[in-house]
Amino acid sequence: MRLQPVSGLPEIRPGDDLASLVAERIDLDSGVLCLASTVVSKAEGRTADLGEFPAGPRAREIAAGLEELTGEEKDPRFAQAVLEESTELLIEAPFLLTETRFGHVCVNAGIDRSNTGGDDLLLLPKHPSESAARLSEALSVPVIVTDTCGRPFRHGQRGVAIGWAGMPASRDWRGERDRDGRELGVTVENVIDELAAAANLVAGEGDGGVPAVVVEGFEFGRMGGSNEHFRAVEDDYVRQALRGWSRE
Amino acid sequence: MRLQPVSGLPEIRPGDDLASLVAERIDLDSGVLCLASTVVSKAEGRTADLGEFPAGPRAREIAAGLEELTGEEKDPRFAQAVLEESTELLIEAPFLLTETRFGHVCVNAGIDRSNTGGDDLLLLPKHPSESAARLSEALSVPVIVTDTCGRPFRHGQRGVAIGWAGMPASRDWRGERDRDGRELGVTVENVIDELAAAANLVAGEGDGGVPAVVVEGFEFGRMGGSNEHFRAVEDDYVRQALRGWSRE
Repeated sequence: MRLQPVSGLPEIRPGDDLASLVAERIDLDSGVLCLASTVVSKAEGRTADLGEFPAGPRAREIAAGLEELTGEEKDPRFAQAVLEESTELLIEAPFLLTETRFGHVCVNAGIDRSNTGGDDLLLLPKHPSESAARLSEALSVPVIVTDTCGRPFRHGQRGVAIGWAGMPASRDWRGERDRDGRELGVTVENVIDELAAAANLVAGEGDGGVPAVVVEGFEFGRMGGSNEHFRAVEDDYVRQALRGWSRE
Repeated sequence: MRLQPVSGLPEIRPGDDLASLVAERIDLDSGVLCLASTVVSKAEGRTADLGEFPAGPRAREIAAGLEELTGEEKDPRFAQAVLEESTELLIEAPFLLTETRFGHVCVNAGIDRSNTGGDDLLLLPKHPSESAARLSEALSVPVIVTDTCGRPFRHGQRGVAIGWAGMPASRDWRGERDRDGRELGVTVENVIDELAAAANLVAGEGDGGVPAVVVEGFEFGRMGGSNEHFRAVEDDYVRQALRGWSRE
């Protein structure tokens, strides 16, 4: 398996044709294209100014709580933007852990305050899998829209998939047996997250970062795939614990 | 960046010299070697039989609770083995989410009931980073010991690092700036988990699985690294929520 960064992409602006910009720079007859959500958002015009989010009472309450706990000034308009991009607030202090409208659990609804040109905010794509589908159709390869975020239990951030098209989310090993004929303990392998993590190793960050990476030679294998990616609350005991905790 | 599976490894037995077995099969003058914890455990003789874990009252209580909830028969000796490999039980039903003695949060303390030859159980290596250090010294490349496990919020399993040596756990981008000169939102990138995820894409599972993968061309970059990997409870709000939840 080989990962190739797509070099020389220009700064992306609203309306840019990302598929063409990538296709002009790399021979894409096979492989999986991993694209950072930042460039997808920029092409889709998902920038915003804080002034577009006049803070309601809930946002003001959240910002005040964060200020008290962290001792740092918090703009209630930012809390408002986070609320508007979210369907649930899982943790409210000392940071905002939210579920975005498309099901991704991350801090601040994934809203980025760096790397946004003249605007205050860069929001995540509205429907990352729909963005991936458009790009996948134009380029005739599977496309994964990636983000970087933290997680419980383990330090640091890592690349994850927030949208995908042209391939299933997982390799499904159910029924597969090991060398001794026993059924495998590991059954469903989320390959789009693993591909996003791999791409992030090549992409880097900062002004030397490359937002597009092609993975060649990934084999989906003989097993079928399944397409679940974000867990439902009923299936997620940690989500349930967080709900119980915040109600205390 | 390129990932190369190490083909043709034999079934590993206690006392096997893993470093030599790998070195005989691949030219390892650079790169990062990712090794599945299963083979490290087998070489270190970390197999066990259920009979070695006579169940105490706590294990019998846990197994009875799991039986009631799942309707499946549960061996209290397995619960005993999980308890002995753990320092904390984070979730007790419908599955056992534990922190292992070396700090890794996973189901059943990572004890594997498949792929164990004639024995009932395959335990995780006792000190995976010490195992990695021995292998890294023998092979003169960084070594990551990997596992696959599930996680909150996201479906399926993915490869993670449980031990590492010869490289820091993370790329630290703190202070780095984006194209517009703003400080980056993403600061610490856990690269050993990302490398483990990437290796898992190549390793596969089942009788066609390959437990050793070499990653070539990974660039640690100009930034320094940090070496934190497993979160401390004080730094982990989800851990805190789970503690509050299980006390209810």
